[in-house]
Amino acid sequence: MLYTSSNNSKIKKIKKLQQKKYRDETGLFLVEGEHLVKEAYHSGFLQELILERDETFFLDGIPTSYVTKEILSYLSTLETPYPIMGVCKKIEEKNIGERILILDGIQDPGNLGTMIRSAVAFHIDTIILSLDTVDLYNPKVIRSTQGLLFHINIQRRALTDILPLLKKEDYTIYGTKVSNGKNCRTLEKKEKFAIIMGNEGNGIKKETEAFCDVFLSIPMHNTCESLNVGVATGIILYELDK
Amino acid sequence: MLYTSSNNSKIKKIKKLQQKKYRDETGLFLVEGEHLVKEAYHSGFLQELILERDETFFLDGIPTSYVTKEILSYLSTLETPYPIMGVCKKIEEKNIGERILILDGIQDPGNLGTMIRSAVAFHIDTIILSLDTVDLYNPKVIRSTQGLLFHINIQRRALTDILPLLKKEDYTIYGTKVSNGKNCRTLEKKEKFAIIMGNEGNGIKKETEAFCDVFLSIPMHNTCESLNVGVATGIILYELDK
Repeated sequence: MLYTSSNNSKIKKIKKLQQKKYRDETGLFLVEGEHLVKEAYHSGFLQELILERDETFFLDGIPTSYVTKEILSYLSTLETPYPIMGVCKKIEEKNIGERILILDGIQDPGNLGTMIRSAVAFHIDTIILSLDTVDLYNPKVIRSTQGLLFHINIQRRALTDILPLLKKEDYTIYGTKVSNGKNCRTLEKKEKFAIIMGNEGNGIKKETEAFCDVFLSIPMHNTCESLNVGVATGIILYELDK
Repeated sequence: MLYTSSNNSKIKKIKKLQQKKYRDETGLFLVEGEHLVKEAYHSGFLQELILERDETFFLDGIPTSYVTKEILSYLSTLETPYPIMGVCKKIEEKNIGERILILDGIQDPGNLGTMIRSAVAFHIDTIILSLDTVDLYNPKVIRSTQGLLFHINIQRRALTDILPLLKKEDYTIYGTKVSNGKNCRTLEKKEKFAIIMGNEGNGIKKETEAFCDVFLSIPMHNTCESLNVGVATGIILYELDK
């Protein structure tokens, strides 16, 4: 089917997926570009393909709608839209694993995407997002993950609910501080751990800090007050993966 | 002096500093917000203060212009402008040091800023930007550095000019690869080195690769093709700082 009008009710519904409210209501989200569409497909989350009218791309068993260039621009969040987009269902949560990254109030979509990418790289099996962390299905987050959000268990939870459970199950809870914490180069290996990274400006919340067994810091030149939180997360996960 | 019109020739000149062309012509650039203005001042690069009319901020020996809220919005690159801005002269280049970070075609301003921040953190003394790397004085780069661009020697050079000189001076030249390089966890300490990080999509250029003594890789899960280049740089600099 070829859609040519942005007034079409189906097209309007897809457009609305740019808003968190509608993503939450429908349990659906959009991905843009062949790479992300294929990642969604191979992970079983792709529901529908949206292609520019002349596109010959094909994925077995996936219903496909064709649209004009104008509709594509209308649906896309990019200045130069890809000719291939996909509607996906949100990823279901799995049981919590043994190597956990907890994000306490991350606001920047690019930072969240980058952190998901690093988490997969360094064998984290579960990411827990605090309720005030940016939406996982924000288009910029999805792009920054480079599709790796389909390869890791991600949950959104109140940290004051989940942290007592982890403590009861004997996870080591690592907090992070920009200075005066334990040098992250001297970490001992733990079977079950959760590492908490905090908000870009304010770090970890006081109520979250209360659950930490030990605070880690990255040794650095004192002219530099702190690293970008995505970089700091990368370094700490790299150390935990030794 | 209070400026109230965006047609004023001085205000127009300041506005033009948002464009690389005029920054190059004048040798000036803009910083926004008290933190960056103070960093520029203490490093000796601040030439002039621009304040919202009611602002009482003061820096000894710095000529100050006052502007209306409207002019501030006009001059700012931010949706919510700070009441304090500064015109700075570009930072002069110093002699090349012994711990060098070379960036070969970095395109994303946020990545460049983050990398400068990490370089200061991990005791790099000189950053060399290839001619096709994004402008150091791009407003997003400056914001992402958190002012640390004032604390490190940064030069822009043709890499095919500078690399032969470094080789002659017995620097170890490290390249980076997403896989199959030497494990960066097993680095030996070198007194004089240059580490080259490549473009977001394409890595290091062929002509640059030819100068590398050894290629480093970060060991990671094979589901993840690569890390964000800012994160990868952070981890490699962290290892080189051991």
